[in-house]
Amino acid sequence: MAQLIQGNAVIGQSGGPTAVINQSLVGVVESIGKIKQIGKLLGARHGVRGIVEEKFIDLKKVGKGVLEAVAQTPAAALGSSRDKPDRAYCERIFKVFEKNNVRYFFYIGGNDSADAARIVNEMAKAAGYELRVFHVPKTIDNDLRVTDHCPGYGSAARFVASAFMGDDRDSASLPGIKINVVMGRHAGWLTAASVLGRMDAKCGPHLVYVPEVAFSLDRFVHDVGEVYGKLGRCQIAVSEGIADEQHKAIAAVLAEKLGKEVERDSHGNVQLSGSGALGDFLADYVKQELGRITGKKLRVRADTFGYLQRSFAGYASPIDQAEARMCGRKAVEFALKGDLDGSVAMKRAKGAYKISYFRAELKDVARETKDLPKSFINKAGNGVTPAFAKYALPLVGELPVIGKLA
Amino acid sequence: MAQLIQGNAVIGQSGGPTAVINQSLVGVVESIGKIKQIGKLLGARHGVRGIVEEKFIDLKKVGKGVLEAVAQTPAAALGSSRDKPDRAYCERIFKVFEKNNVRYFFYIGGNDSADAARIVNEMAKAAGYELRVFHVPKTIDNDLRVTDHCPGYGSAARFVASAFMGDDRDSASLPGIKINVVMGRHAGWLTAASVLGRMDAKCGPHLVYVPEVAFSLDRFVHDVGEVYGKLGRCQIAVSEGIADEQHKAIAAVLAEKLGKEVERDSHGNVQLSGSGALGDFLADYVKQELGRITGKKLRVRADTFGYLQRSFAGYASPIDQAEARMCGRKAVEFALKGDLDGSVAMKRAKGAYKISYFRAELKDVARETKDLPKSFINKAGNGVTPAFAKYALPLVGELPVIGKLA
Repeated sequence: MAQLIQGNAVIGQSGGPTAVINQSLVGVVESIGKIKQIGKLLGARHGVRGIVEEKFIDLKKVGKGVLEAVAQTPAAALGSSRDKPDRAYCERIFKVFEKNNVRYFFYIGGNDSADAARIVNEMAKAAGYELRVFHVPKTIDNDLRVTDHCPGYGSAARFVASAFMGDDRDSASLPGIKINVVMGRHAGWLTAASVLGRMDAKCGPHLVYVPEVAFSLDRFVHDVGEVYGKLGRCQIAVSEGIADEQHKAIAAVLAEKLGKEVERDSHGNVQLSGSGALGDFLADYVKQELGRITGKKLRVRADTFGYLQRSFAGYASPIDQAEARMCGRKAVEFALKGDLDGSVAMKRAKGAYKISYFRAELKDVARETKDLPKSFINKAGNGVTPAFAKYALPLVGELPVIGKLA
Repeated sequence: MAQLIQGNAVIGQSGGPTAVINQSLVGVVESIGKIKQIGKLLGARHGVRGIVEEKFIDLKKVGKGVLEAVAQTPAAALGSSRDKPDRAYCERIFKVFEKNNVRYFFYIGGNDSADAARIVNEMAKAAGYELRVFHVPKTIDNDLRVTDHCPGYGSAARFVASAFMGDDRDSASLPGIKINVVMGRHAGWLTAASVLGRMDAKCGPHLVYVPEVAFSLDRFVHDVGEVYGKLGRCQIAVSEGIADEQHKAIAAVLAEKLGKEVERDSHGNVQLSGSGALGDFLADYVKQELGRITGKKLRVRADTFGYLQRSFAGYASPIDQAEARMCGRKAVEFALKGDLDGSVAMKRAKGAYKISYFRAELKDVARETKDLPKSFINKAGNGVTPAFAKYALPLVGELPVIGKLA
């Protein structure tokens, strides 16, 4: 083992929270707790913003009972941030690190957080300042590169799968057309999880629309009409991020049509979640168009699952919880082991589900993301394949047992 | 015990499904299964509609394994119906009963179902036809009279409480104003359940709006501004059924304003669920008005929990499941015991939580509903009292343990 650097550590949480981001936090805290050479473990309030404003909690002082409760709690216990640090911002972060003799930096987040970690790391290297930087992956979007899957995804996918299972039975009780809008700006991983609890081909979701496939309203109405004609009902999963041929989000097109001011985050992304507008629009459109074609007054409903997908308490995937915790522990292990920085990644063994952890390069995880591969989307572009279910099922834990009458 | 009438039995499920309506169904099925004098137990597809169309399944032939899986499954396994039978409709039901020698009728539903059961029962009496009619209560709205609470409520309340717990932590991670719209057309029972997992006074929901209190937009903006000024964030629970001084649903006022065709059910009720319009409207309004007052660009988000509240799979309240099952069993027990008809009701013992079951008169449960009592709503009309939590906590089962950093 390389010699431990004497000094302090900083940890932060970033971006959209998940149900298990605190597991990773606690994984780091419990591992660092044993290391005497690391004086303080400073938890930054609200991510990088807490670092530049020097708003810290000393996490070595937090009791084991509180830590365990926090680990079980959805969302970022330290607070999160949507700030996307540029070079100047990273410079400020680095100055705070120097001032506080910070020698270890753990940043739990997505691809943007990996990029911020990468930039700070380069600055330290350029300044000849000893600093170990580790990114810990988290995102319900499951779109980070290198790693087999991302902590946070399994729990969100578990929520979505269970929601579709129950809602499908509800929609079979009172038949009609039911549209459920699922989180996912660029990648359809979470929307695809809607199929994981399907009992048989008659069960929903009957149609799945992901951002990877260009969305057409005409095609949508046609597809729904076909299923409705066959089964007398239709349950549909739609990514909030579905986009047209020009890669423009339908939600953004719609907002402009309605003359609504479009809210954008620091990454330039249009606000998608926290509004039911896309679902309502699709429901109204189907009701009108398919109503016109069939001459029927259709029962069409839309639900937008919203923040519950990432924050619902008490329903995380046990395997996701355990893996998120391990990712935190491994970040510390890797950071203490040598003089290499990086991001914690997971590798799946062939055969029975088993995960091993390895160090990935920050640059390989930073910035770009990973879409659903073509092999996971059906040919018609309105469903997912058995290969996807095989990939995703081990991540969500045991799904509820449900049944139906013949 | 009075002499058993030889003949068949019919069971149906009605209205908006719940997570435990199938528990009641299975409670009836397993109890009837043992009674040889009852030949067939006919499950009506889609409630009263299945009766008049004679679409039945013989539930005595369903295996135990399937029944147990169905009991765990949200929504109405027989299918449900929104039909509100008038006298002529009830006449058709009665004719089918005579034709099929139906001597026992079990109807699982809310106050309207109790009323349909009452009418059919009167017809049988007038015709001198031996028929035992039992209503089995179910509704997530918890608004039936006589009974202490309604099967279905505990599970929906558990979902809502857990959703608010996690969402509150999410909203603390990325502070702003968060509005969550909860089911409940006339009664605020389910919206009130939003408070059940609150760890302390700083945790949300900070404001709760129920249909029992006239809703004012000005007052709403004022309340939100006050909480936001104090805490830097605000999480809000709003019933979908909030109404103005003239008892007109805000959702209906809004739909008219937008020039949208208002969908009504057979009861004349305006469609509330299956749309995010109310939440989006309130979010836009607060953003604009409070933004103007404070001069700040506010982060405001709205989620509408929608059908997940009644249908989410795998998260029912264990106590609610057990009670719903018992209500089904008790309906059979009461029906076989004598020559009285009725509705199954629950009574709570003083002291530690314990429920006993009794027979209520159909007429006392039919038609009218029960609002949140004044003692459960705070003086300001924007929150609920500890007395409500004391009433509701035993119904939801153990809530998840969560924690936060100081």
